[in-house]
Amino acid sequence: MPNAPTAKGRATRARIVEGAAEVLREQGVAFTTLDDIRGRTGTSKSQLFHYFPAGKDELLLAVARFEADRVLKDQQPHLGRLDSWESWRQWRDVVVERYERQGDRCPLGSLFLQVGRDRPGARAIVTGLMRQWQEQLARGMRALQANGLVSSALDVERTAAALLAGIQGGVTIMMSTGDSTHLRAALDTGIEHLRGTAG
Amino acid sequence: MPNAPTAKGRATRARIVEGAAEVLREQGVAFTTLDDIRGRTGTSKSQLFHYFPAGKDELLLAVARFEADRVLKDQQPHLGRLDSWESWRQWRDVVVERYERQGDRCPLGSLFLQVGRDRPGARAIVTGLMRQWQEQLARGMRALQANGLVSSALDVERTAAALLAGIQGGVTIMMSTGDSTHLRAALDTGIEHLRGTAG
Repeated sequence: MPNAPTAKGRATRARIVEGAAEVLREQGVAFTTLDDIRGRTGTSKSQLFHYFPAGKDELLLAVARFEADRVLKDQQPHLGRLDSWESWRQWRDVVVERYERQGDRCPLGSLFLQVGRDRPGARAIVTGLMRQWQEQLARGMRALQANGLVSSALDVERTAAALLAGIQGGVTIMMSTGDSTHLRAALDTGIEHLRGTAG
Repeated sequence: MPNAPTAKGRATRARIVEGAAEVLREQGVAFTTLDDIRGRTGTSKSQLFHYFPAGKDELLLAVARFEADRVLKDQQPHLGRLDSWESWRQWRDVVVERYERQGDRCPLGSLFLQVGRDRPGARAIVTGLMRQWQEQLARGMRALQANGLVSSALDVERTAAALLAGIQGGVTIMMSTGDSTHLRAALDTGIEHLRGTAG
């Protein structure tokens, strides 16, 4: 079955990952055992082994992938339709609100701390998340260009990369300082920069 | 002596911290013992205890403070005189070069991983570094304003906070992806934004 999972198998695996993500968020990676996860998800040892034969690290990587998807999902539908200044404003508010709510707990960061940020599987999740996030920002900037709201001379890829860097740095600084000033500044200055190229 | 250190005492302590920083950079925090540090710095056990009575964590925090100072020193003299576009360009090149050379090793990051980023001492070092860095960027932006190169309407504090966030995020992303595209994008877009407000 691992080679050709059935729909039921995929659903069971997804349920385990989702339940594990909840336990890990509540208790922290360092204080969660496989038994905690089995208890929450109503999974037997053999079931857990069936879906994650390589053990805890494999399950943690699957949860990291789930959390990475969630980062983008939490920004929808706004991130997917950044074609007006109003939609950029709404997206900006959602991002600030999401990270203020999250505070200094970063589910993805703690998972990588545990499984090792340098493992190929972990790296692929981070670079995949960054690439998709940046692509959606770039698509939004091109939509602004198409609507005549932003100069066609704007270097979209570079500007999207800069905005993404500002968000990452703003979140990182917030986790040290406990306040979202830098995240807000990065978002507001980034949008102001886009507006400044108008016409 | 710990309460009123002599000049000689301060010099010895500084020599230990500097030597420890070198060993830690070469071997990594996880693989360095106090004996390694004593060997490199020619320090006896009782001397080490005299200067760092609380032990390894106290020494690691002192090294973290040293590394934080180094982050700003490495950007001088440029960071301290950002009063023309040429000086901004030179500073930008120095920052990119510094972090490309550093690659995916972050001495400060590994120290905090070891002593715990949440300890008050560690937090104070990060917030102090961020504050000083941002102040120098803001001072540079005000110098551009004074020289009529940037609009007097620019929100200097917010723009400096955004630029700092972009640098932090660019460095963070570089440590995952191994390339400096995002760091360059953040610096170049930040400077372009300043230029765009000219006149």
